[in-house]
Amino acid sequence: MSQFWSPIVSQLKPYIPGEQPRIDQLVKLNTNENPYGPSPNAIAVMRDMVNDNLRLYPDPHSSAFAQAVAKRHGVALDHVFVGNGSDEVLAHVFMALLNTGKPLQMPDITYSFYPSYCLLYGIRHDAIPLNARYEIDLNDYRADAGPIIFANPNAPTGHLLGPEAIEKLVKRVPNQLVVVDEAYIDFGGKSAVPLTKQYRNLLVVQTLSKSRSLAGLRVGYAIGHPELIEGLERVKNSFNSYPLGRVAQAGAAAAFEDDNWFRTTREKIMNSRHDLIQALEKRGFEVLPSYANFVFARHTSRDGAELAQALRERAVLVRHFKLPRIEQFLRISIGTEAQCAAFVKALDAILGR
Amino acid sequence: MSQFWSPIVSQLKPYIPGEQPRIDQLVKLNTNENPYGPSPNAIAVMRDMVNDNLRLYPDPHSSAFAQAVAKRHGVALDHVFVGNGSDEVLAHVFMALLNTGKPLQMPDITYSFYPSYCLLYGIRHDAIPLNARYEIDLNDYRADAGPIIFANPNAPTGHLLGPEAIEKLVKRVPNQLVVVDEAYIDFGGKSAVPLTKQYRNLLVVQTLSKSRSLAGLRVGYAIGHPELIEGLERVKNSFNSYPLGRVAQAGAAAAFEDDNWFRTTREKIMNSRHDLIQALEKRGFEVLPSYANFVFARHTSRDGAELAQALRERAVLVRHFKLPRIEQFLRISIGTEAQCAAFVKALDAILGR
Repeated sequence: MSQFWSPIVSQLKPYIPGEQPRIDQLVKLNTNENPYGPSPNAIAVMRDMVNDNLRLYPDPHSSAFAQAVAKRHGVALDHVFVGNGSDEVLAHVFMALLNTGKPLQMPDITYSFYPSYCLLYGIRHDAIPLNARYEIDLNDYRADAGPIIFANPNAPTGHLLGPEAIEKLVKRVPNQLVVVDEAYIDFGGKSAVPLTKQYRNLLVVQTLSKSRSLAGLRVGYAIGHPELIEGLERVKNSFNSYPLGRVAQAGAAAAFEDDNWFRTTREKIMNSRHDLIQALEKRGFEVLPSYANFVFARHTSRDGAELAQALRERAVLVRHFKLPRIEQFLRISIGTEAQCAAFVKALDAILGR
Repeated sequence: MSQFWSPIVSQLKPYIPGEQPRIDQLVKLNTNENPYGPSPNAIAVMRDMVNDNLRLYPDPHSSAFAQAVAKRHGVALDHVFVGNGSDEVLAHVFMALLNTGKPLQMPDITYSFYPSYCLLYGIRHDAIPLNARYEIDLNDYRADAGPIIFANPNAPTGHLLGPEAIEKLVKRVPNQLVVVDEAYIDFGGKSAVPLTKQYRNLLVVQTLSKSRSLAGLRVGYAIGHPELIEGLERVKNSFNSYPLGRVAQAGAAAAFEDDNWFRTTREKIMNSRHDLIQALEKRGFEVLPSYANFVFARHTSRDGAELAQALRERAVLVRHFKLPRIEQFLRISIGTEAQCAAFVKALDAILGR
């Protein structure tokens, strides 16, 4: 607390990201990073961009990358908004589009950054409980009420909704904005982006941190009706004209062009996920159906926090949330085959198997 | 205007950055970029960082870079805040520290992003006129009033205040925060950073976009009392956990280590500035004394807007602001010797010299 803080500051409860320890031998399955590197083409392009031209400001509109996004998703350029990671995109979404005076509707268990944004911008929100199977039931979201945000697949549960369910919702609430955070959509889900061409109350947010293996570059984007994008641009241009540097813009565009790398690596992850779920079930875990690059699982007899701690002592990091309803669960990112094997080995040692 | 915008959005008047046209033959003296590239060591380090590890999230605290800043400025690590360009740092400063309910005091002519931040966060501000010589007179800033922000050297005038004047101010207003934006301090000014060790109501913001030649990387920072830094961290961690990517963190740290490159390039720019001022005065310009990497000048008989347009037709870009009091001035960034010569040559053609 300081006399120089704006009043809002003492009320903030910042989001706490998964640990980023610097230990070399670590099996790091706690922050849903991609175990495979980014597209080699993107690496080559980024190396080229590291040159004397870094003295110059980047394109404030990130045009080349925005065009790559537009092309891939089959939308016009004015349907695309770009930011410094999807966290920044989401921050601008909260300020520009979700601060309506009406309580924002979101799942009680979802990406835990959402409530932090609400505090930052003074947005009230209603936490709508997941059902007994830890699923989002869109019938629980009210029409003639505040806007709606959720992650699809949801985090940390991995639960997926289909485009039909989302279309039904946006049709039912034509005067409320629906924001779908698709950070994990590329690991088996079907994107709601095509619906944005038809429904002006739908905004979809994606990231390059997961399926494009570029968490260390910081690039995200949103797709929606140009009116929504203009609202975001106005806030962005009142905040930071140049959110993406020259290397990030070039690397992001190149990663989008390399469809082959994208398909190959996500396939591998989906295969490893299948194997990991089987291994966990064999060891007494209940695993929620997952369409993300992580699984969410609880052991039928062992405590979640204790398991996370025991794994940590064996240099395996997974994520554990001390939160109501999910405190027995572990969120385990899908690693390489070797990382998954190391995780299972550590687990066997802990379970005395 | 959209029914889905938060009410604030329709009131925003975003900052308009200088043009970033993509014309190869252009003499670009409109955005105060450094005409010399960044440290070759920094380039080498950044190329190395472009590798498979980009799949991993960066250090959320940018520790290595923050340590480099702390070391250079002789302050403790908890006196340093890091962001995605000084524009992002300033945005967080406005939200965390300048939104006090009392009108913010700032010069009427200064970095024109400040009023945009005010609109974004609903901060009222008082514009304190520069004196007749286009200088900031700190005696005009009131005690027992709102916080204070100004650029030093000021932009676009280039006017410099010494640390004595700033110390006198922070002593006189102990219960008001004073923010000094030192984007251009390395071109002949003396930083107020040492004062931050003694005065807890002083925050200094700097950037790597100018004297470190890294506008294309997006790195800035603030230095002040740990209480101020904590306020900024709380807002940052409610906005985006990872504002700086892996390449940016490494490049920024390496640029800070290369003192030799820093000294050599800024010396060249100060020499070119000296020569350019002489050339302009010889051609009938009044040039304000400048301690920045630009000069602010008006011709005694030719119209500012017309000159800017005529230069543009000769592929020379300078900045012209259509604003009261300064509409006759041109802001000319200091280029290489060749760029300055090309500018003067174009000018001679226009003036019929």
